[in-house]
Amino acid sequence: MTRENWPSIDDVALAAKRIAHIAHRTPLVPSFGLSSLLGADVRLKLETTQPTRAFKVRGAANVILSHDDIDPAKGVVAYSTGNHGRAVTYVASLTGLPATVCMSHNTTTDKQRALEAMGARVRLVGGSQDEAAELAKQLEADGALLVDPINDPLTTAGQGTIGLEITEQWPEVDTVVVPVSGGALMAGVALAVKSSVPSARLIGVSMERGAAMYQSLKAGEPVVVPEVESLADSLQGGITLENTHSFEMVRDLVDELVLVSEEEIAIAMAEAVLEERMVFEGAGATPIAALIHRNRSLFGERIALVASGAMVSEETLALVLREHRETVPRVLGGSR
Amino acid sequence: MTRENWPSIDDVALAAKRIAHIAHRTPLVPSFGLSSLLGADVRLKLETTQPTRAFKVRGAANVILSHDDIDPAKGVVAYSTGNHGRAVTYVASLTGLPATVCMSHNTTTDKQRALEAMGARVRLVGGSQDEAAELAKQLEADGALLVDPINDPLTTAGQGTIGLEITEQWPEVDTVVVPVSGGALMAGVALAVKSSVPSARLIGVSMERGAAMYQSLKAGEPVVVPEVESLADSLQGGITLENTHSFEMVRDLVDELVLVSEEEIAIAMAEAVLEERMVFEGAGATPIAALIHRNRSLFGERIALVASGAMVSEETLALVLREHRETVPRVLGGSR
Repeated sequence: MTRENWPSIDDVALAAKRIAHIAHRTPLVPSFGLSSLLGADVRLKLETTQPTRAFKVRGAANVILSHDDIDPAKGVVAYSTGNHGRAVTYVASLTGLPATVCMSHNTTTDKQRALEAMGARVRLVGGSQDEAAELAKQLEADGALLVDPINDPLTTAGQGTIGLEITEQWPEVDTVVVPVSGGALMAGVALAVKSSVPSARLIGVSMERGAAMYQSLKAGEPVVVPEVESLADSLQGGITLENTHSFEMVRDLVDELVLVSEEEIAIAMAEAVLEERMVFEGAGATPIAALIHRNRSLFGERIALVASGAMVSEETLALVLREHRETVPRVLGGSR
Repeated sequence: MTRENWPSIDDVALAAKRIAHIAHRTPLVPSFGLSSLLGADVRLKLETTQPTRAFKVRGAANVILSHDDIDPAKGVVAYSTGNHGRAVTYVASLTGLPATVCMSHNTTTDKQRALEAMGARVRLVGGSQDEAAELAKQLEADGALLVDPINDPLTTAGQGTIGLEITEQWPEVDTVVVPVSGGALMAGVALAVKSSVPSARLIGVSMERGAAMYQSLKAGEPVVVPEVESLADSLQGGITLENTHSFEMVRDLVDELVLVSEEEIAIAMAEAVLEERMVFEGAGATPIAALIHRNRSLFGERIALVASGAMVSEETLALVLREHRETVPRVLGGSR
């Protein structure tokens, strides 16, 4: 089940030990709303309870803690303004390292402020994400550790610790549903789950608009897809053309990749607030969207959803609630 | 520090072992918004990640699991339509016992539906909560186990496990802020925290409108306060005139009880959504309200808030957001 260029299940187990004091073992909580809706036992793996509110802290911690030669003056670098940037900043702050996050001048000041509140040095450059990446690579060449959220086996092993926890918390699980972007999360979780519970089904979910992994699997090799606006903006971006392992791992270990529409994501976000009283960003709600809108037969009786990411703007949240409060399948209703 | 009629710290430790397979060890997550606002390290003990979304499952589990003689036909009984009713239903469903929840015909059908979705037998009776209590006591006389959320040392010990976890997760904690209603939560947490970290300050928070424990302490004995409508409706109700231990424990172990207004609670609920992207009902937001609105000097540098309960109606949530989005102290802003 494994190959030389993949991280191994031992790497995942080692990551779990390495990151235990930084990333939480997150709760797996029953969703009474989705369980009633599907007539199944649906549980949410609440990665929103990580210190940074998203799973990315696992991979970032595993990468940073695996390097014992980081220059204390140069520190670590990321060029994500989202959950990965927050994760790298948080791990750096705990380990006493400076964290630099490179972003373009187009980034909202809100994002900048949020990262600075967590202790990041923010470097503004140019007008595009590409220029931010360029600066990050310069800093790397200059001696900083650039933390790669997509194509580092240590990142994949770190994210895989979620799969280990799910199978420990629920050995009887039939199906694990996971958002898919660059593939590190999906690959790591699939490796860990299939190693512990070979019979478990792994289902990946991406948004229709810009599903890089889905299109790459269709093409038989990593391809670039155009980036378009999506509620699931955290899932945007490619799997890198030099993908070393997550493409293969998803291809070989994942049973099904499904796509969800913008409307389906919006309904899922509204469902989470109205029925579960939980706030997820679009990316985090994609597994719920799949569960509500895709064929019931895809999922078994004991279904775990990886639910991660809360960085949705107030405007977006208000909008999806306003537009979809009537469409959301209400089982529990507005119970106080 | 302890008396014969109080639960002991050993009772709390025993409760922790007893309930471990039912109630989660919940995460203690940093609040970057509140930390920035206060210039302190503020962390939220997320009891909203309990299976039932509130801490009550700890006490209910400790009571039910401590009785090995429950009649499997009569099962367990509660007359709470809120978080305690949900907790009793959930624990009963896991232990294979029937749970009966008594409620008046005035209860919303939403609440009834939510409890039934969790497996409760709902018994509707009369037009007031008193009549529901009466029926519950009849069922108790008839052989069922009535689970008392307020005045049972096993309940208090169960809720106290939160305090044990906080001091294990953060031995350096200076101040623990806890919502106060009947007093079992406050008493249990105070006992556990002071036993492990004697220097820690314990602060209780109630709503101005109907603060039974606060008024009782002022009177020097348990008193009845009129129940009036409040955003923190889960904190309504008395501490019982026959209070055997929580009144004394709160009096002797808690450093300060503060009251918060309806507007302060509303602002705290809005802060949670807008800055933390978390949904709390009014009762759960009272510690945040105290932190935002009471004298900074009450709190130390390392502050843990017990944050519990998500059963807020959609209408109430929309209302507090609409009315207070401009008043909420925004540190992180609407990032993303």
